[in-house]
Amino acid sequence: MSLVHSLGEAAARLQRADTTPTALLNECLERIHAWEKTIHAWVCLDEDRARREAQRLGEELASGKPPRSPLHGVPVGIKDIFDVAGLPTQAGSPLLRGNVATRDAALVARLRQAGAVIVGKTVTTEFACFDPSPTCNPWRVTHTPGGSSSGSAAALATGMCFAALGSQTGGSITRPASYCGVCGLKPTFGALSLQGVTPVSFHLDHPGPMARTVDDLTILWRLLSGEEGPDAHSESRPTPPRIGLLGEFFDERADAAVRAATQDAMQRLAQSGAQIKPLPLPRDFLEVHSNHRRIMAVEAAEHHRWQYHAHSDQYGPNMSALIEEGLSITAVDYAAALKFQTTFRHEAMDLLTEVDVLATSATPTPAPGSLETTGDPAFNSPWSLAGLPTVCFPCGVSPEGLPCGLQLIGRWRGEEPLLEAARWCEKVLEFQNRPSSEETIPG
Amino acid sequence: MSLVHSLGEAAARLQRADTTPTALLNECLERIHAWEKTIHAWVCLDEDRARREAQRLGEELASGKPPRSPLHGVPVGIKDIFDVAGLPTQAGSPLLRGNVATRDAALVARLRQAGAVIVGKTVTTEFACFDPSPTCNPWRVTHTPGGSSSGSAAALATGMCFAALGSQTGGSITRPASYCGVCGLKPTFGALSLQGVTPVSFHLDHPGPMARTVDDLTILWRLLSGEEGPDAHSESRPTPPRIGLLGEFFDERADAAVRAATQDAMQRLAQSGAQIKPLPLPRDFLEVHSNHRRIMAVEAAEHHRWQYHAHSDQYGPNMSALIEEGLSITAVDYAAALKFQTTFRHEAMDLLTEVDVLATSATPTPAPGSLETTGDPAFNSPWSLAGLPTVCFPCGVSPEGLPCGLQLIGRWRGEEPLLEAARWCEKVLEFQNRPSSEETIPG
Repeated sequence: MSLVHSLGEAAARLQRADTTPTALLNECLERIHAWEKTIHAWVCLDEDRARREAQRLGEELASGKPPRSPLHGVPVGIKDIFDVAGLPTQAGSPLLRGNVATRDAALVARLRQAGAVIVGKTVTTEFACFDPSPTCNPWRVTHTPGGSSSGSAAALATGMCFAALGSQTGGSITRPASYCGVCGLKPTFGALSLQGVTPVSFHLDHPGPMARTVDDLTILWRLLSGEEGPDAHSESRPTPPRIGLLGEFFDERADAAVRAATQDAMQRLAQSGAQIKPLPLPRDFLEVHSNHRRIMAVEAAEHHRWQYHAHSDQYGPNMSALIEEGLSITAVDYAAALKFQTTFRHEAMDLLTEVDVLATSATPTPAPGSLETTGDPAFNSPWSLAGLPTVCFPCGVSPEGLPCGLQLIGRWRGEEPLLEAARWCEKVLEFQNRPSSEETIPG
Repeated sequence: MSLVHSLGEAAARLQRADTTPTALLNECLERIHAWEKTIHAWVCLDEDRARREAQRLGEELASGKPPRSPLHGVPVGIKDIFDVAGLPTQAGSPLLRGNVATRDAALVARLRQAGAVIVGKTVTTEFACFDPSPTCNPWRVTHTPGGSSSGSAAALATGMCFAALGSQTGGSITRPASYCGVCGLKPTFGALSLQGVTPVSFHLDHPGPMARTVDDLTILWRLLSGEEGPDAHSESRPTPPRIGLLGEFFDERADAAVRAATQDAMQRLAQSGAQIKPLPLPRDFLEVHSNHRRIMAVEAAEHHRWQYHAHSDQYGPNMSALIEEGLSITAVDYAAALKFQTTFRHEAMDLLTEVDVLATSATPTPAPGSLETTGDPAFNSPWSLAGLPTVCFPCGVSPEGLPCGLQLIGRWRGEEPLLEAARWCEKVLEFQNRPSSEETIPG
């Protein structure tokens, strides 16, 4: 069985009655049943309801009604920090066992209205922070899939669904997407609703879509944001983007495999007409990570403090350390970090005056060979702090055979031009994001 | 000498060459020279430059050029926390003696481009907080003018200028405007630039215009925000607004004089066709003041901490207490206050779904009879926390002969409809905001 096509292809096949929602769901469920016991991408499945929904949505199409959206009848996964009515939201914590949601999170409701078939909840690290989940990387099961949107990335990489919701506070969309060879969009801060989402840090949390192609991310972005894209004609001929390439910290921290993959991708993009302009980092860049950490620690501690005081034994070691750190910080230091966030946002925006997008490697290394870590978010947290939108997509493979990703950063609320630039790059790079020979993924 | 007309009247007279910028400036300077030694509204005057500017702006008009704006050739005062190029920004603190600004604050630059004649810097309380300034209330010189925009309010009340810049973190525009019988607009949080303004608290600071009529505030708002008003026709026939009257806390805290003035005003507004609808306070209202104080203390402490550690003896007792309080607060408590701010903002916005504006008395009492206090901002700080725009204008006089103000609260970014409602009310109430018989203000 060849790995299923993209969301866009699935939509096209449904449109011409080449398949049905039920058939698509069955394909996904087959993959889940074959691989889930190895990969552990799902916290819970909602098979019965999904089958009924697929059936009903198929009947809608069969009766001659137009599809509600390109997502009509398409199976999707929901990271287990988003409420789905009738399913528990456990957020990777034993404290939330049995915490059944009574209504859908705002973005889940949007997907449902658009006709998506919700297959189940995908695994998150504990409270979407740093304590690893049991999920494995489908490219090599001894390697981390990254976190915190571990299950969403792994499920997409193995064809268990066509789209998924993720969220990023540091690098939780981009890192797992990159490690698993799939795509992720972290939109502009505040662009998508967090209603019904378990919070980590209210100045840093970004919900966003994940998928197998940048085209699919574009479909999902328009649907989740309610924004219209440009008309079909202007989309058909994207022009080569002007790319500001960030080095220094990013070059120093990246390993040889990632550096080579990024360098090779930049060369191929330049050969196809992209203007690649090396840019210096903003003046305050080296203070980004400490300020990001401070905000995240304080706001996570604020959210958890009463429960933590009562049940500290129920928190993992990384989460406990984060909360303890947050509890020890003074208000003036946190206020200074919030002011830094605004300053850095404007410095990062200033970098984008003469280029269309910024580019960096998506992660310092390919997926680390351990399930005891979720990897290093240092290339992603600067943009979570700045709140600028980012797209991640695979651009190459390491000598070890693991995917390497590229991260593009766009202007504030500039998701459309960012996605357009990413689509252009994706077409040039032609990455075959198929993780799984039968050798890699035991069936 | 009768008290000068409004900014709008001055503009009309300039337009028909009935006066000149120099003549207007001379009128203001005469009043300043007569009353300043009693009132202490100014930190510094810029007489020579003002005369040159008035001369030049007059020549522009005489040469047949159209006025740059309704402010062309009109004398204005600038609260001494806004930078004016070439003048010191002292912010009421001995620590900033000799702190000469090299460029105009963004809003000052706007006024200057519009042709305003900057007369000088008006007195602020220390760092725009609670330690009183030497300014007296022109209605009775043993009473406070309110703070922190003390000088701007007193200067307007005595005809020393036609418009002034103020700023509000708690009640620093509304309270002095109300105590001095003039008008003030606190715009929506973030609507006007704070570039070049000495900060108090970055989640609470609002710069805004003060004047003698709501019409004048409207002129100033459009000029400072760059927003266009509706066309002249629609402005000529404002309709009676639907007013949500807030009681409970406001009734309980107001003294008899203020309660009577507000009640009387509401009756007259209702008789003229306004719909007055009593509304309950938002659920969390009673937590507003402690959360406001916490944010203000932390952010003031963050800004001042190093200087305070080095020069604590140079800070007034109220400012020292505010900074000490801010230094002692934990980050998680401050984070909780910031979350409360967002919650309360939405609760306050929800109140405005069925009415055009909310109304309260502008202050709990008329100007207190002391120069050791700047009065009580408790009726104003809720809207500084929510960030919703407010307009204050006089609505009556206490038995003691002191002005009482009305405060209207509008929708987020709804300055135009708020000002329209306030203009309607102002016309109905016909308050003669003239403080000064020669008995009240010793010449």
